[in-house]
Amino acid sequence: MSDRTIDWVDGAIHLIDQTRLPDALVVLRITEPEGLIDAIARLAVRGAPALGVAGAMGTALLAARHPGDALAVRAGAARLRAARPTAVNLAWGVDRALARLGGGPDAVLAEALAVRDEDIVACAAMASRGADLVRELVARPLIRVMTICNTGALAAVERGTALGVVGELHARGLLEEALPLETRPLLQGARLTAWELARMGAPFRLLVDGAAASVLARGLADAVLIGADRITANGDTANKVGSLSLALAARHAGVPFLVVAPESTVDAATPDGSGIEIEERGADEVTSLRGVPTAPAGTRTLNPAFDVTPASLVTAIVTDGRVIRTDRGERPAG
Amino acid sequence: MSDRTIDWVDGAIHLIDQTRLPDALVVLRITEPEGLIDAIARLAVRGAPALGVAGAMGTALLAARHPGDALAVRAGAARLRAARPTAVNLAWGVDRALARLGGGPDAVLAEALAVRDEDIVACAAMASRGADLVRELVARPLIRVMTICNTGALAAVERGTALGVVGELHARGLLEEALPLETRPLLQGARLTAWELARMGAPFRLLVDGAAASVLARGLADAVLIGADRITANGDTANKVGSLSLALAARHAGVPFLVVAPESTVDAATPDGSGIEIEERGADEVTSLRGVPTAPAGTRTLNPAFDVTPASLVTAIVTDGRVIRTDRGERPAG
Repeated sequence: MSDRTIDWVDGAIHLIDQTRLPDALVVLRITEPEGLIDAIARLAVRGAPALGVAGAMGTALLAARHPGDALAVRAGAARLRAARPTAVNLAWGVDRALARLGGGPDAVLAEALAVRDEDIVACAAMASRGADLVRELVARPLIRVMTICNTGALAAVERGTALGVVGELHARGLLEEALPLETRPLLQGARLTAWELARMGAPFRLLVDGAAASVLARGLADAVLIGADRITANGDTANKVGSLSLALAARHAGVPFLVVAPESTVDAATPDGSGIEIEERGADEVTSLRGVPTAPAGTRTLNPAFDVTPASLVTAIVTDGRVIRTDRGERPAG
Repeated sequence: MSDRTIDWVDGAIHLIDQTRLPDALVVLRITEPEGLIDAIARLAVRGAPALGVAGAMGTALLAARHPGDALAVRAGAARLRAARPTAVNLAWGVDRALARLGGGPDAVLAEALAVRDEDIVACAAMASRGADLVRELVARPLIRVMTICNTGALAAVERGTALGVVGELHARGLLEEALPLETRPLLQGARLTAWELARMGAPFRLLVDGAAASVLARGLADAVLIGADRITANGDTANKVGSLSLALAARHAGVPFLVVAPESTVDAATPDGSGIEIEERGADEVTSLRGVPTAPAGTRTLNPAFDVTPASLVTAIVTDGRVIRTDRGERPAG
């Protein structure tokens, strides 16, 4: 099997079923478009880059199944896009592959593989550039890095974004330990990031989200690295809920706070974070955990999925193309 | 039955079994000292003030069981103290009742009931003084209050400290909504505070800890109230892990941050927070939740039970005896 989160193997999509982690590593072999729609809807595959690849490969499956029947392919692509309507990258991946439909199934597949390969190259570039920057910013010989959510290989094809930098520091022999936050409500840090760190043999200790500020204040971490769902022209960054809290804690402790995300995450058309709508999600994510209730029945919640960290709290943004030193007044766009 | 968290009823201790909440309200009737030791050890009763009362009442049970046998009472008291060796208030309650042993079982019981009654009076004073201060500090007609952990009646005999202020605001018709944080790892906010708020009919929404900063930054709360385990001479405050993060978020949002705790929490002998040792607890609290694993087997953790909020981030400290305006340079002692 491939070590990739999502890949194309012998005419089918192979993907790691993330709902089974960390208990079991199960690779799904998907030959039918409907199987992919199901996998996306139940979050077996997640993470913006991975969803882009999934959308493109799903379109390749459709094109192979309905050669010469563009109408059927487009109808299937619409269903694929709707599997997670708010995932911008999913629709982007579908559309990119669909644009090659005129060239036949082989052209669509070639485009899907290009989407995959470009993501691998972008993550490698971020890992290298990010590790260089952390090395430059941190005086300590061995480095302790805090991170939130899952921004690793499981969110992409290989390596990932912020966690890709942690992996690169480990590969260079520079990582003393990683300090992943568990990331309530969905526990991507505890379930996925801890699994990835263990798999790469990196030393790490898991924290509850509320412990981050005191651990930073006690001088136990040298840098904080997060991913991003969207970066506005001025550098304000939307990311998993808890990121703003972590940025405030890093500033309080005088520790660099770095955002690592592909260039495609930069939304130059939105001037600043006030233009970002915050998705509010259901109560059950907060009032239960892996199916076990944690609060009285009927408890109402306030459950924003994301938050916005102002550029003023960000030391630098690392993309596959550049380093943007927001602490020196540099801005992603405009 | 009594509505109190812990009480003395017909020669026995009655206490709410907090391990059963929020699923069931079970009141234990405890007639044997060994039963109380078991209840304390398995956290059926918790919270500094409640443990003080438990220690005093447990000593009263011992005195009634061994009249005239001071040796037996003292041996039992030593076992009671050891049920939770780090709980300062438990030992304090035991010692206070034990000091009356020369007066016979009735004198010991009278002292235990005095400990209970003094706690009720102290909590009432904090609720009233705290609600007055919140009203003074917040311009909005109806007030939205964020809080962490459980600082309610379940941590005391009646009403509690920070949550007692929330209850008082509700009783005065001033509470728009309470915003309790779930408080990982042990979920005292989700399990206990949500249950208390529902029971008092107060409107509330539950949040994951990581959402506090963005909810405050979006202007959705007017004040933050926390309890305290220990307050040093300069006003630095040790409290449940996550409190520092909440203080930083309140400062970022320009929202008052109030500490509510009895005068006995002030540790005048310790100049500042650097003298407070942070208790590190076991990994299973972080890697599982109500018995369900959340992280890969063998995951190591960093699990500080408390953190220290510097006085510079605290607007005021409210005790049963006074309001200390740390924002105006006032200090608890020294």
